[in-house]
Amino acid sequence: MLAKIEMEIEGNGLDVNMSSLFHGYLMNSIDSAYADYLHYNETHPYTSCIYKDMESGKIFWKITTFNKNAYEMLIKYFLENDVKNIYLEKKGIEIVVKSISMTKTSFDELFFSNEKKSKIYFLTPTTHKSNGVLQIFPNISTLLLGVINKINQHSDTIKLEDENVINELLEKVYIDEYYLRTRYFFLENIRVRGFIGNLKIKIKGKDEMLYQLLNFLLQVSEYTGLGVKTALGMGGIKIG
Amino acid sequence: MLAKIEMEIEGNGLDVNMSSLFHGYLMNSIDSAYADYLHYNETHPYTSCIYKDMESGKIFWKITTFNKNAYEMLIKYFLENDVKNIYLEKKGIEIVVKSISMTKTSFDELFFSNEKKSKIYFLTPTTHKSNGVLQIFPNISTLLLGVINKINQHSDTIKLEDENVINELLEKVYIDEYYLRTRYFFLENIRVRGFIGNLKIKIKGKDEMLYQLLNFLLQVSEYTGLGVKTALGMGGIKIG
Repeated sequence: MLAKIEMEIEGNGLDVNMSSLFHGYLMNSIDSAYADYLHYNETHPYTSCIYKDMESGKIFWKITTFNKNAYEMLIKYFLENDVKNIYLEKKGIEIVVKSISMTKTSFDELFFSNEKKSKIYFLTPTTHKSNGVLQIFPNISTLLLGVINKINQHSDTIKLEDENVINELLEKVYIDEYYLRTRYFFLENIRVRGFIGNLKIKIKGKDEMLYQLLNFLLQVSEYTGLGVKTALGMGGIKIG
Repeated sequence: MLAKIEMEIEGNGLDVNMSSLFHGYLMNSIDSAYADYLHYNETHPYTSCIYKDMESGKIFWKITTFNKNAYEMLIKYFLENDVKNIYLEKKGIEIVVKSISMTKTSFDELFFSNEKKSKIYFLTPTTHKSNGVLQIFPNISTLLLGVINKINQHSDTIKLEDENVINELLEKVYIDEYYLRTRYFFLENIRVRGFIGNLKIKIKGKDEMLYQLLNFLLQVSEYTGLGVKTALGMGGIKIG
């Protein structure tokens, strides 16, 4: 089960640097035992981010889940309670939910999808750790390995365990084009540097199975996010 | 001796991908023994590139030299012959030189300069080699080491030989912000991927000597270019 809810939001003083406040609202709203469970996990079966759609200028809150439990506990909250107003206590800001759209799919459906994807749009600042340091340039193998690990840790239905195939993909995948810039992500009192923009990826050679795996991982990454701090608002992406 | 000549150029069919044609014109115009000498060197005491100024939309041919001999042989050609027309034989295109500006300085002058520089604008596609592969993301240490090597190989007046200081700089320098995209550079029948845009660099800590060295290297890099194929048109930069 993979699910995504996107809410167009509006409010005086609202800006895209408020991801962590929305995350706080989310954790306060859902079942507290499940919120505690999430709190003590290192990686999470969900993402949450605030981003501005560049074409329309509208601001969205996107929440994604990638197992059944997270879907039931997080996304269903918005559907069942018909949430129309969100109060951000710390800032005293009242947010209005103007519209909601939902997408549901499955790992199987994405694996056998015929849509060919190669472009990643980073909607919110993204970063990953290499050699103990948060990086400001993307490493596509590291980012995809993060997706694989999240699938293996949280999926109810599949495991990606063929190390030979995975290693071959991670060795052969590369960034063909990019258009990126640094941008700070604001997390309470700290700033984390990341990159936003877009890039296009390719694989050396013509192995059909690797292309299918890459295509699958890219589509799943819309749900898992890319890089670190994806529950708090970093690494929110779209695939094209 | 560091010198730079910038010519505003115009012509039907002229575009920024013609750097190698202009380089061919240059080599055909100057003393043939010196052209041969340059041909058999691995690195060169000059750069040549064609770039479009983004604000004015005007196209420029920039030639820089960083030793006396190169200045005498290359830049003086334009001054002494009052070049107003450039014929690009291969394309049959007549280019008009609309204006010429010249800058001369010295390594000493730049070393003791009080201007503080931290931003690099990549005017033409730039790339450098790491692990035998041309890279599409900048590594600032590698790029600055290239400048140091060019100074040491070609300067008439200075050598940068304090390895401890150089290593400390290369370890502590980092990219603080960037705004970059990939762009192809066209070289006869091959395309080389590089990046254009700009970035801002900083040094960890507050060592005054390292700041002075960095400032010096940045200013010199306007003359040496950055990365590979700087004689043919890649790695043309401005400092700000």
